[in-house]
Amino acid sequence: MRKLIVQKYGGSSITDIKKIKNVAKRVVSYKKKGYKLVVVVSALGDTTDELLGLAHKVTKSPSERELDMLVSTGEQVSVALLAMAIHKLGYEAISFTGAQVGIITDASHTRARILNINTKRIEEQLNRGKIVIVAGFQGVTTDRDITTLGRGGSDLTSVALSKALGAETCEMYTDVEGVYTADPKIAPGARKLSKISYEEMLELASLGAQVLQPRSVEMAKKFNIPIHVRSSFLNKKGTIISKEVKAMEEIIVSGVTVNKDEAKITIYDVPDKPGIAARIFKDIANKNINIDMIVQNISRTGATDISFTVFGRDLNRALTTVREASKKVKAEGVSYNKEIAKVSVIGLGMRSHSGIAARMFNALARNKINIEMISTSEIKISCVIKKRFADKAVRAIHKEFGLGKK
Amino acid sequence: MRKLIVQKYGGSSITDIKKIKNVAKRVVSYKKKGYKLVVVVSALGDTTDELLGLAHKVTKSPSERELDMLVSTGEQVSVALLAMAIHKLGYEAISFTGAQVGIITDASHTRARILNINTKRIEEQLNRGKIVIVAGFQGVTTDRDITTLGRGGSDLTSVALSKALGAETCEMYTDVEGVYTADPKIAPGARKLSKISYEEMLELASLGAQVLQPRSVEMAKKFNIPIHVRSSFLNKKGTIISKEVKAMEEIIVSGVTVNKDEAKITIYDVPDKPGIAARIFKDIANKNINIDMIVQNISRTGATDISFTVFGRDLNRALTTVREASKKVKAEGVSYNKEIAKVSVIGLGMRSHSGIAARMFNALARNKINIEMISTSEIKISCVIKKRFADKAVRAIHKEFGLGKK
Repeated sequence: MRKLIVQKYGGSSITDIKKIKNVAKRVVSYKKKGYKLVVVVSALGDTTDELLGLAHKVTKSPSERELDMLVSTGEQVSVALLAMAIHKLGYEAISFTGAQVGIITDASHTRARILNINTKRIEEQLNRGKIVIVAGFQGVTTDRDITTLGRGGSDLTSVALSKALGAETCEMYTDVEGVYTADPKIAPGARKLSKISYEEMLELASLGAQVLQPRSVEMAKKFNIPIHVRSSFLNKKGTIISKEVKAMEEIIVSGVTVNKDEAKITIYDVPDKPGIAARIFKDIANKNINIDMIVQNISRTGATDISFTVFGRDLNRALTTVREASKKVKAEGVSYNKEIAKVSVIGLGMRSHSGIAARMFNALARNKINIEMISTSEIKISCVIKKRFADKAVRAIHKEFGLGKK
Repeated sequence: MRKLIVQKYGGSSITDIKKIKNVAKRVVSYKKKGYKLVVVVSALGDTTDELLGLAHKVTKSPSERELDMLVSTGEQVSVALLAMAIHKLGYEAISFTGAQVGIITDASHTRARILNINTKRIEEQLNRGKIVIVAGFQGVTTDRDITTLGRGGSDLTSVALSKALGAETCEMYTDVEGVYTADPKIAPGARKLSKISYEEMLELASLGAQVLQPRSVEMAKKFNIPIHVRSSFLNKKGTIISKEVKAMEEIIVSGVTVNKDEAKITIYDVPDKPGIAARIFKDIANKNINIDMIVQNISRTGATDISFTVFGRDLNRALTTVREASKKVKAEGVSYNKEIAKVSVIGLGMRSHSGIAARMFNALARNKINIEMISTSEIKISCVIKKRFADKAVRAIHKEFGLGKK
């Protein structure tokens, strides 16, 4: 008996019945090679958005428990249809919801965390020779309430199942061929990476390369599960995400990303006293608003400006909170800007190579692109610039580091 | 605290978001009166048929387990949306799937039977003052596989919940105002009945008056649960279905029904020996094909003809089985006819009044409608006639028994 593979097919791989049949063929081709297979599927195409649309026609602020009840039906439809398509090809398959296979989560509806997976039922079916199909994105609380794991949650389901079942590899099928040095739509010379480290992928994923959900990469890193991101339409190898290997060190910068969905908020003249920033950001965190970059410069007058970015969709809620908080701490005022983009370079090599930041800033300067905010980590440098220069900036930086096709 | 009401809203009551909001208003109006409420809903409009359509695009013979997995999502969508609509009105509501409220069934997928309902979770929520919304039509096996209860299964869910929870009444909301003496589209003078017995409703339901699923009426009868069939669009009393009461005996015939979805099969020259009929019908039963009328006349030649009717959709499967069986028992041959209709009169009063059959046959004869098969029960007389005479026959019989508006 060969080893177990977990395969995940996202919504773009199953937009219609024809594509579901194609997925069934691919799954069966692995079964023929002797693999045990667990297949995780997302909802068909835009189903999740359509269901959310229905909810918002009913009420502007739907209950999160009921939202999970609603949208979890999307994956349930997919698993049943895929099982039928595999049966049609003469192979045994059985579908399960997250609840049925015991993907136990906490009760944070719409963004639940997996606590435990009871693999007994899956293993029983695998041992009977069946292909097991599991609804991605969903779980169940110990009270039997249905939960969902947040956007991209099927990735998390796949990695968690790979860990729980001891899978050899976790294959993520998508509509792109792998992870690229930049978005090919923006930088036409962008090159597919054959391998990349978890750390780099994490930065890429959280910076807007929408190939994999960041939490799933974190979990893969924690348990050292190799992920293979590849196209569901082609028979080509994609990008392997695994722990850092020797060869990777040759590459200084792995990719350039851009995120146009953020907005910048600045609080002016915040009193420069201990505990003030903590007070502001605690209020924001209590509203479940994610903060990305935070920049605070040295104070020369006893007051300082604090800037940070939030997701565009959270801007209005964030502003309300920030305005209240800024009054409490006696800051001067609050401004915001939605017309920004965040451009970043990512690479493990940065740790041992100096001058990367200078080259990036220089590339932007040559193109007369002003930098509004800068934030750096060990393997990433991000700059906030005007949104209208975003694509130009990506191309300039991509060229600067020679990331294009050779 | 006032008593508990179970309300069921069928697909025709919730075809769109606007109608869901109307249902929410009606539910809340009962909550305001102080009732405890359990609301059972079907899938939105044609959702179930659409899902079945998807399945049949994948394969002509989908697995029944996977079909249940697929179509049960329809009700799950409805319960979540209705809960949200009730929240919008400022009332507390919580939705549950069949599995979540412990509607335990056997494993006969697509036509499961309810074995047990664990009411603990519903009662907890009712005691917290919440309106409890339950997905109709579905249950779960002890192995946690999702099952469905067959067409009209939400009716069964409602009655079963009424019994398990000790509800005062079970209200079935639909797109008609109640149970009529005949289909008003066929007999324009048809009158709404204010009350009817379980027995009569059973005959009506199984004879094509598609107001209630027969199994739900059987269960209501068994546990003596009054059912109130009424319109979800009007604020009017409908028809109460309950055990036989004195006043009912005045009415001889309650209604005239017609079923155009059946086909007739005849087996010629079946040897007239004990056990032959049993052998034929056992083979058919094994294929899960429901037989309706069976007519066999006396034999004068040592061989006899047996005729019976099946649902039109089962005709092809039935014919295959019947042809094999007729060879085994050495019958002469098999014929069939799809162009038939079954017209019936129903009434408790028939038990004590003679001459009903004669009046029915006479009404048909006056209209030159030939009778091809006759079958009678204690409270019903059915005649198979040519399909093209069906509506004319209903009007003639409806008039004969003076069932129209006064």
